[in-house]
Amino acid sequence: MARYRLTLEYDGGGFVGWQRQTNGLAVQQVLEEAITGFSGETRTVIGAGRTDSGVHALGMVASVDIDRDMSPRKIRDALNFHVRPHPVGVLSVEPAPDDFSARFDCTGRHYLYRVLNRDTVPVLDRGRVWHVSYDLDLDAMREAARLLIGKHDFESFRSTHCQSETALKTLDVLTIERAGPEYHLRCSARSFLHNQVRIFAGTLIEVGKGRFTPGDVQKMLDAKDRAAAGPTAPAHGLYFVKADYP
Amino acid sequence: MARYRLTLEYDGGGFVGWQRQTNGLAVQQVLEEAITGFSGETRTVIGAGRTDSGVHALGMVASVDIDRDMSPRKIRDALNFHVRPHPVGVLSVEPAPDDFSARFDCTGRHYLYRVLNRDTVPVLDRGRVWHVSYDLDLDAMREAARLLIGKHDFESFRSTHCQSETALKTLDVLTIERAGPEYHLRCSARSFLHNQVRIFAGTLIEVGKGRFTPGDVQKMLDAKDRAAAGPTAPAHGLYFVKADYP
Repeated sequence: MARYRLTLEYDGGGFVGWQRQTNGLAVQQVLEEAITGFSGETRTVIGAGRTDSGVHALGMVASVDIDRDMSPRKIRDALNFHVRPHPVGVLSVEPAPDDFSARFDCTGRHYLYRVLNRDTVPVLDRGRVWHVSYDLDLDAMREAARLLIGKHDFESFRSTHCQSETALKTLDVLTIERAGPEYHLRCSARSFLHNQVRIFAGTLIEVGKGRFTPGDVQKMLDAKDRAAAGPTAPAHGLYFVKADYP
Repeated sequence: MARYRLTLEYDGGGFVGWQRQTNGLAVQQVLEEAITGFSGETRTVIGAGRTDSGVHALGMVASVDIDRDMSPRKIRDALNFHVRPHPVGVLSVEPAPDDFSARFDCTGRHYLYRVLNRDTVPVLDRGRVWHVSYDLDLDAMREAARLLIGKHDFESFRSTHCQSETALKTLDVLTIERAGPEYHLRCSARSFLHNQVRIFAGTLIEVGKGRFTPGDVQKMLDAKDRAAAGPTAPAHGLYFVKADYP
């Protein structure tokens, strides 16, 4: 038995999300079936993040045991063969310690949220960016973002379905950069609440439009009530970029 | 009668190319049918470049006459409604002089060629980049690229089906930059020969692999024979970025 660390890219558009569900195909399931495909083994793949339906990954990390004696590179190639035709790619497979957990050992999770800010809808990036046609006030968005950084009770910024016992989290990074016709929101933390990044994005875009002020965002934090914050931005603008391990 | 300048984005993947053909759907045809759709008029749309099947555009420019009295913004929105569901977007519509031709008045054409350089195939950018898994020598590629800049007889670097009377052209820009896991080749000239950018890309990647030296590229130029140069890189890595007008 050997444990491996996988790094994965996927287009979340056609999936119910990372985690197996009864109502459609999950990324986890595609990977588990690919493992069975080349090894005959029934395995559970553990991911660093359980992305929602529609959320993409550029560098998701996962851990899994595989008995079959093959080099990590051959396992990577076998997985890439067996995941087809699904839009999942195994970028790398590396040997990991026997007790490695992509989920529990993860010390940092990094997300990117892409907003296409122009009048007309995306064509080449359809399904890959959130299209917002309003003029946005970047300074106001940045001022509001700064209020969210640090250790807070993020009760207002999590889904009402979030199963975390506490909403107390430390947000390490929340930046907004202009990138051509896009705005890129980048968020990093040890861990996130359900929908937290999407609610940040939805709220900050409302700040950019002038519907909320940075002061309103402070009041949202203080309210500790999901109804106080802005809308949840669409899943298809969100990317799981990277996971850190000690 | 009023003439307009259109700026267009499209995913070339599903098209036979810019120009109308009998064997499939062309971008030009989608636009012409969209014009008929909202105005009832039968028009010919003239493009700055006649991109091949599979080639994408971020900022193609086109000229067309439209009788119907509408604001440019309303024309843009009507076109975007009527091009659906095809992956063509009209980014802007501007009034143009009566004698404006997107093709004949164009003084500069700018292309981008995207190469994804990693072991595993693209997932999120499937159909949008050329996947090359070999290690590439950027310095050698750049040295070869410099030999191609300037006024040359590019006979070796055009399709044998190219209909241009002369292969004598001036290449203004040919740069290669690293962009994360990608290489971006950028080419600018007043005009290009058929497949010229794709043969540049195909040849320079062979230089990067070490199959050709920069000196070989000089010999290719001198040979004035298509068979002397490298392969034509796939259409799906190529983007028409921008067109210049006085």
